[in-house]
Amino acid sequence: MYPTSLNDVIESFKKLPGIGERTAERLAFAIFEFDEEETKEFSSSILLLKEKLKPCKTCSTLTDEETCYVCQDKTRDANVLVVVEDSKSVFLFEKIGNFKGYYHVLGGLISPLDDIGPEDIRIAQLLERVKENNIKEVILAIKSGIEADTTSLYIKRILEKNDIVVSRIASGIPVGADMDYVDALTLDSALRNRKEVLTN
Amino acid sequence: MYPTSLNDVIESFKKLPGIGERTAERLAFAIFEFDEEETKEFSSSILLLKEKLKPCKTCSTLTDEETCYVCQDKTRDANVLVVVEDSKSVFLFEKIGNFKGYYHVLGGLISPLDDIGPEDIRIAQLLERVKENNIKEVILAIKSGIEADTTSLYIKRILEKNDIVVSRIASGIPVGADMDYVDALTLDSALRNRKEVLTN
Repeated sequence: MYPTSLNDVIESFKKLPGIGERTAERLAFAIFEFDEEETKEFSSSILLLKEKLKPCKTCSTLTDEETCYVCQDKTRDANVLVVVEDSKSVFLFEKIGNFKGYYHVLGGLISPLDDIGPEDIRIAQLLERVKENNIKEVILAIKSGIEADTTSLYIKRILEKNDIVVSRIASGIPVGADMDYVDALTLDSALRNRKEVLTN
Repeated sequence: MYPTSLNDVIESFKKLPGIGERTAERLAFAIFEFDEEETKEFSSSILLLKEKLKPCKTCSTLTDEETCYVCQDKTRDANVLVVVEDSKSVFLFEKIGNFKGYYHVLGGLISPLDDIGPEDIRIAQLLERVKENNIKEVILAIKSGIEADTTSLYIKRILEKNDIVVSRIASGIPVGADMDYVDALTLDSALRNRKEVLTN
C-alpha cells in the first residue's frame, strides 16, 4: 500500500521500542520533510553509532574511545565506585553532575530464572578493580526487584572480606511526585527508609 | 557528556516531532542493540526515502514511481475524485480499502493569514483534471477549521460552473469514542449533521 521507500523506513521505526504503526508513519513523513543535510546526518549517525560506540575497557560504560572520559579523569575521587546495571545510569549520574567518583557497569543483574549467574556479569572485574585501586566504598545504584536484591547481596558478600563499605541508593517517593500515584511497594520502602526531621 | 556517536543519533531523533530528550536517548540505545543488518537497513532506508519518494505526476500522492499505483489502475471509478490535503490521507483511505475512485492531493489549504492563496495549492490542476476526465463528483476529505472551510468554498465555486457535485466528508463523533471526551465543536457539528434513525 505504501511506496516501498516509505514502507522500509516505517518498518525500521517499528522495530524501536514504543513505536507503533501510526507513530512510525508520522516519523517517516517527518524524515521526508528533512533537508538533505539532516537526512545524511541521520543516516550516517546510525551507522557510526554501531561502528564507534563500545564499552570502556575499564568501567564498560559506552564510549567512542578506548577509555571513557570519566576513567580518563584522574582528578576524581578514587575511593568511591558507583556500580550500575548499564551505561544509561552512568549518563544519568553524569547529567546530575554531583557525583565525582568512578563507575562500574555490570552489564546485567544476577537472575537464576534467566540463567544469568555472577560469572555472566562483570563482578569478577569489579572485585579486581576494588582490590587494585584502594576503593573504600561501593555504592550500588541499581533498580529495585528480586534480581537487584540478589545481585546486591552477592556483591556485599564478596566485598565484605575486603573491608569495603557496600551501600545501596535509597528507594522512595520520587521528588515532586504526587502521593496519589505512588505504588504500595514504593511507599513501603519509603516508610522503612524514613529519616528524622531535624530542626537545624 | 554523551559520546559523540551516541549524541549525534540522539540529536537527529530530537528533530522528529514528539521526540524529546529522554525518548531520543531510549531510541538511540535501542539502535545500538540492533544487529548489523537492521542498522544498515535503517540507515539506507532513510537515504532512499529522500532519493526515491516524490509526488505522483497526476495526483501528487507520494510514490516511488512516476505515477502512483492508484492512478495506474484503470479499473477504478473515474467519476469520483477524493480531494485531500496531503498524501497521508490517501494512504489512510487506501488502508480502509472501500473507496475505489481516484485522489487529488492539494498540498495545503488556502490560508490568507499565512499568505497561502489558491494559486499556492494544486487547485488549477484539480480543475484541469475535472475537465479532462468527465468527473461527476468531487469529495473533499479535509479536516475541519477556517482554512479547510475557505478552501472548500473556493473549490465549490470553481467547480459548480462545470456542473460537478462537490461534497465534504462528515464531521462528527469518532466511532467508538466516549461521549465524555468529545469537544464542543465536534459535538455541535455532529448535532447539525444528525441523521434520522430508520427502522429497516
